[in-house]
Amino acid sequence: MIETNVVDIKDIGARARVGSRALAKASTHAKNVALGYIADALVENTNRIVEANEKDYRGASDAGASSAILDRLLLDAERIEGMAEGVRGIAALPDPIGETLEGRVLPNGLRIAKRRVPLGVIGTIYESRPDVTIDIAALCMKSGNAVILRGGKEAFNSNSLLASLVRDKIEEAGIPRDAVQFIESTDRALVGQMLGMKEHIDLMIPRGGAALVRRVGAEATMPAITGGIGVCHTYVDRSADVDMAVDIAVNAKISRPYVCNALDTLLVDSAIAPAFLPKVVSKLGEAGVELHCDARALSILGPASGPAIIPAIDDDWGMEFLSLTAAVKVVDSLDEALEHIETYTSGHTEAIVTEDYSSASRFQDEVDASVVIVNASTRFNDGGQFGMGAEVGISTDKFHARGPLGLTELTSYKWTMQGTGQIRE
Amino acid sequence: MIETNVVDIKDIGARARVGSRALAKASTHAKNVALGYIADALVENTNRIVEANEKDYRGASDAGASSAILDRLLLDAERIEGMAEGVRGIAALPDPIGETLEGRVLPNGLRIAKRRVPLGVIGTIYESRPDVTIDIAALCMKSGNAVILRGGKEAFNSNSLLASLVRDKIEEAGIPRDAVQFIESTDRALVGQMLGMKEHIDLMIPRGGAALVRRVGAEATMPAITGGIGVCHTYVDRSADVDMAVDIAVNAKISRPYVCNALDTLLVDSAIAPAFLPKVVSKLGEAGVELHCDARALSILGPASGPAIIPAIDDDWGMEFLSLTAAVKVVDSLDEALEHIETYTSGHTEAIVTEDYSSASRFQDEVDASVVIVNASTRFNDGGQFGMGAEVGISTDKFHARGPLGLTELTSYKWTMQGTGQIRE
Repeated sequence: MIETNVVDIKDIGARARVGSRALAKASTHAKNVALGYIADALVENTNRIVEANEKDYRGASDAGASSAILDRLLLDAERIEGMAEGVRGIAALPDPIGETLEGRVLPNGLRIAKRRVPLGVIGTIYESRPDVTIDIAALCMKSGNAVILRGGKEAFNSNSLLASLVRDKIEEAGIPRDAVQFIESTDRALVGQMLGMKEHIDLMIPRGGAALVRRVGAEATMPAITGGIGVCHTYVDRSADVDMAVDIAVNAKISRPYVCNALDTLLVDSAIAPAFLPKVVSKLGEAGVELHCDARALSILGPASGPAIIPAIDDDWGMEFLSLTAAVKVVDSLDEALEHIETYTSGHTEAIVTEDYSSASRFQDEVDASVVIVNASTRFNDGGQFGMGAEVGISTDKFHARGPLGLTELTSYKWTMQGTGQIRE
Repeated sequence: MIETNVVDIKDIGARARVGSRALAKASTHAKNVALGYIADALVENTNRIVEANEKDYRGASDAGASSAILDRLLLDAERIEGMAEGVRGIAALPDPIGETLEGRVLPNGLRIAKRRVPLGVIGTIYESRPDVTIDIAALCMKSGNAVILRGGKEAFNSNSLLASLVRDKIEEAGIPRDAVQFIESTDRALVGQMLGMKEHIDLMIPRGGAALVRRVGAEATMPAITGGIGVCHTYVDRSADVDMAVDIAVNAKISRPYVCNALDTLLVDSAIAPAFLPKVVSKLGEAGVELHCDARALSILGPASGPAIIPAIDDDWGMEFLSLTAAVKVVDSLDEALEHIETYTSGHTEAIVTEDYSSASRFQDEVDASVVIVNASTRFNDGGQFGMGAEVGISTDKFHARGPLGLTELTSYKWTMQGTGQIRE
């Protein structure tokens, strides 16, 4: 069985390191040609990919995988075309590598410049979605980073085929196939070993659920991007435009309830609650949202509020619902809202709806999150919306990069210094 | 005894976190006033500081500390005045906090901006130098970060007094004293506990020898800046100006031999070695430098080369000498030099001396180090030389920041987004 392959993960790491050196020097043209070949190969090999995926799908289905997992696992012609389009989109983005970030001449005539370079080798651990194989491989290719891919066991056959297509195609474009490594084994012990390979992996990116992200954050010996957990509040200030606040809250909750930038807790100023709450609850109720309300919200909504409105419990505050559920709390002031957010925020996305200049300023100054929003839906914390073109994820860390992560966030820099014989006194 | 104080390090962390929130909001004016008060207090309390320091000095001397440690430990009126000047210099630097790094209007009218913010709480572990207490506290104050200071036991009395002066003075300037925490105990177990406090410390900065830096790098659960280890090569290309190469090599080795940007290995192209080596060896020999030469260098220098020239051993390549010692190796090409550097670099500082355009370009493109230099001394990898005004250290990491670290490298950013009711389709 393929799954019991004996894999020399140190050797994989060493090969990726060597591959990374060649890829770091690859021209933008070579990288874009490789991406073009990958996109074409995906479409040309649709039948083979679907076949491999069917094997995975049957296996997961037989093993009793949930419909959510099965949906994430599935590849059909349309999704494969979508993957190819994604790769072409990444090829079309500007190459971050080589950009001069700043530069100047020092008083002694030394010319210094800060030049963008790749990080080196990126490791990624992901779960049931095989499209992550292509997505991450393409992002790493464009940003000049070698990659070590470790996918979930449900998608093993799909991932294995996709990775071998990628390796073949980059080689055709003149880039060493070792720049993309796929771990041809589902042995669980390899994950722990990978997280300990600080000398071979410069950055670890987990792509999957909260448990995976937390494990990587706790165990990785190298830097890791551990975002993606969003406990998002929207505070409706007393000065808010009620209709705008309703639209924003409803959009933040229902446009895609199972993503990290969806609304979790609605904080409502007591002065506007009687006007705002019945309206927003009616719209959210129509969309099938269950609301966990504090006592003050319940008393405003009254006894006829219906089965989808239940009393909140302590655990609702700071809960990432990832479903058609939201918590509602009435507060007496901006200060109380800020305090609640400070206590429960995950540092992902926080929003205020207000017409008051000072409230807007204070909220943006004082809330500590990757994106802090006035008068818009929290759903806008997204690399695509920011114009980054492709998204690696959303970081809730403060170190290195925060918020939406695009290609430039997968880079480092080096300083160059050009002299004419300068020595130091 | 003070040293056996029972310290609640979690409480210290929690207080620093609360302090960091107030400090993050402090105005540039308040931070500069605090720094001015600290500088004045240092000078006004010279006698008290000298007295506390004498206690430390006697203790360390009685315990048999080396003269290097005793020198680092010593504070006299002149050094205290120097510390005060350093603090005034940090006050005079521009405030990094609040700067807008980029901003634009998205197609839907959302206005986004990337705003520089502090990291939060910085932890620092240092050894025998009490001036680090003031240096790091001032850098953190200016960059809006709370700090937890853990100094070496030799300097305990000095550090304790300096920290209490800092805390008193920032409070006078309206900043909570909890923004600066000093661990009032020399219990060694606290270091390990501190390195595990991911929830209370956002960044760890070790200041001291290689063993401390390595320990922090290996054990810290939070991000850490672990640079400062420099194995620095200078490659003298066949096209080099011989006199320039001699000046650069001599300066890189002897201007301050015990620092991280000093020359360790001199790589010399075989075509220029007969002209270059005797000259450089004569000058280095005059300065008392011991040279560990490979066989080809030895054969060029001849048998009359003197007692300070000895055959190199394998361990000399990749050695950070931190003394009046250097290794010398003759190579046949730029490629061989690049390969040697790739094998032995610590990623700190690498230099080439050349008059050849292509060699200069290739060296800067292909060498992977924080600063890559053409025709100048490696000693220029330094925050002061870069015009940063104050230096936290030199990072050999690629994540977050690389090379000299100034105030801006102690910051993160957040995105602000201003809308007019935008919702996502």
